[in-house]
Amino acid sequence: MTLARGYAALAAKEQLVPFSFERRAPRADDVAIDIKFCGVCHSDIHQARDEWGGATFPMVPGHEIAGVVTAVGAGVTRFKVGDHVGVGCFVDSCTTCGTRHVDLEQYMPGLVQTYNSVEADGVTPTFGGYSDHIVVKEGYVLSIPDNLPLDKAAPLLCAGITLYSPLNHWKAGPGKKVAIIGLGGLGHMGVKIAHAMGAEVTVLSQSLSKQEDGLRFGAASYYATSEKETFKKLAGQFDLIINTVGAAIDWNDYIRLLKIDGAMTLVGVPDAATPPVNAFNLIGARRTLAGSMIGSIKETQEMLDFCGKHNITADIELIDIKAINEAFERVVKSDVRYRFVIDMKSVAA
Amino acid sequence: MTLARGYAALAAKEQLVPFSFERRAPRADDVAIDIKFCGVCHSDIHQARDEWGGATFPMVPGHEIAGVVTAVGAGVTRFKVGDHVGVGCFVDSCTTCGTRHVDLEQYMPGLVQTYNSVEADGVTPTFGGYSDHIVVKEGYVLSIPDNLPLDKAAPLLCAGITLYSPLNHWKAGPGKKVAIIGLGGLGHMGVKIAHAMGAEVTVLSQSLSKQEDGLRFGAASYYATSEKETFKKLAGQFDLIINTVGAAIDWNDYIRLLKIDGAMTLVGVPDAATPPVNAFNLIGARRTLAGSMIGSIKETQEMLDFCGKHNITADIELIDIKAINEAFERVVKSDVRYRFVIDMKSVAA
Repeated sequence: MTLARGYAALAAKEQLVPFSFERRAPRADDVAIDIKFCGVCHSDIHQARDEWGGATFPMVPGHEIAGVVTAVGAGVTRFKVGDHVGVGCFVDSCTTCGTRHVDLEQYMPGLVQTYNSVEADGVTPTFGGYSDHIVVKEGYVLSIPDNLPLDKAAPLLCAGITLYSPLNHWKAGPGKKVAIIGLGGLGHMGVKIAHAMGAEVTVLSQSLSKQEDGLRFGAASYYATSEKETFKKLAGQFDLIINTVGAAIDWNDYIRLLKIDGAMTLVGVPDAATPPVNAFNLIGARRTLAGSMIGSIKETQEMLDFCGKHNITADIELIDIKAINEAFERVVKSDVRYRFVIDMKSVAA
Repeated sequence: MTLARGYAALAAKEQLVPFSFERRAPRADDVAIDIKFCGVCHSDIHQARDEWGGATFPMVPGHEIAGVVTAVGAGVTRFKVGDHVGVGCFVDSCTTCGTRHVDLEQYMPGLVQTYNSVEADGVTPTFGGYSDHIVVKEGYVLSIPDNLPLDKAAPLLCAGITLYSPLNHWKAGPGKKVAIIGLGGLGHMGVKIAHAMGAEVTVLSQSLSKQEDGLRFGAASYYATSEKETFKKLAGQFDLIINTVGAAIDWNDYIRLLKIDGAMTLVGVPDAATPPVNAFNLIGARRTLAGSMIGSIKETQEMLDFCGKHNITADIELIDIKAINEAFERVVKSDVRYRFVIDMKSVAA
């Protein structure tokens, strides 16, 4: 056992505070990781504040972990001390029902989340990446390409895969027109990845305030959704629309922007009930409304390799862990360009 | 020009009455058809009563037409006098934009519906199958396999293709579990076709009153949706669910019955707003909510050939055209097993 230092919420809606806890000694199939950086995901806030229900405390959030291997168990073959690695949203999953073999373990009931969850033993709580080190089973550790700086790579572990997976599944690529709703932590990764896949990317954002950034990330065009004209002009234009925003927007307005056989994919749960879906918007052009959640371990590694090849990382604001509570407030106000990442050396300072 | 005798609605919400009108003389690319039978689709009622808006009167409904060729234009190559043929929901479509080549003309703006529409000239109204004959461009005439009786084959032209197309598109077949919501005119075709495709079919109906029929049509199981237990027992079971009912049911209850990557497809517009879709039901298992509308001419012919091969037709109640207003009332009350079909010789009686 080793003593880990991090930050935790001790109860719902309380400020995060310094917190020490024990990590297990590496088993034969474990990798011990010195956490260098951890991204701040909006879902960290939802969970720390128990906005989705089922939160357990103390809670050490963080599932966009980037670090360096410090030790490996005797049975570990894919990693060695010094390797750059990442850990994403889960650290174990059901391996008995066979679904793991088709690499969709993120959708299985046996998933063990990186924090706010219990391990496969059913009792040991999991603690996340707002801490100085972590011990994770080899099968759930990702390799981060050496050309990617660890601070900017950390958000790939959740924001990156959350966008890569639907872009990959719904075949974004050359000849495809893809729209990304919202240019935040998720959306800006979507623009970069879809562009690198060869798709023509449009950003649909409330205003044009981030237009310059959107075009720099690879968007071919950028529209304000506050303008009614946007929805007339873009009707029937897109093969794929990915909705990254947490607000309860009217999906019908966006579904009508899809071509025949187009798909709109939700990657976040809105914070209130959305207006009813008008069946005709789906029926009249064989459109689909879908959802997607992070990605499998296999697909996450594929995403990291893709990002390594295309030199894709997040645009970040690096923060001291002592600033986490202020960062939470700013994430809620969408006041971050485009992801806060905690510099973990600050936990010891 | 020839004089056609049929039944028409002269204004919204009025009873249908005998009505005579002119059909064009066959042009070089036309097929003249003696209509033997025409199915009664719920959308005939919606349109005759102007429940969807945009109705034009007088309106001769009917788009499940089965008959015999009586004359062909000089340029017609695929049909000859005496052939058994069908006409479905449209009689012309946009041929200039190229989409026709990918056989999705049913979703294009240039579609000319069999009735309640105007021809490509923009002015000539179209009149449907509640009449003794019709003249249709060769490219929109379907061949009905000789082994299928024309009365029972008529409903294939709308009800049949409306179910065949999504079953085909979402790959119903061996190893797939398909649920059909509602056992009416559409639903009973869905059960027969999905079963013939090799899928394991479940009917989800309000009550068990039609269970015996459902099993006879090929369903492996049959559940009452009035029982809460049904939704617990069937959670996560289906690859594909097709919703044929016009009532505004809560789609969330059904989406949760889908497996990972499962799809629920709407083939009818509900008569009221449905409850909001809960994003988590889609996101948590990469499920899709989709819509589908009839099928292309190519796919409709494929469906007819499939039904010929598997000896699939509708279960019908054959009626005299004078009983059409009573039939409309019974369709609205779902009091038909499973499709009314007009015996068109009654129009001359």
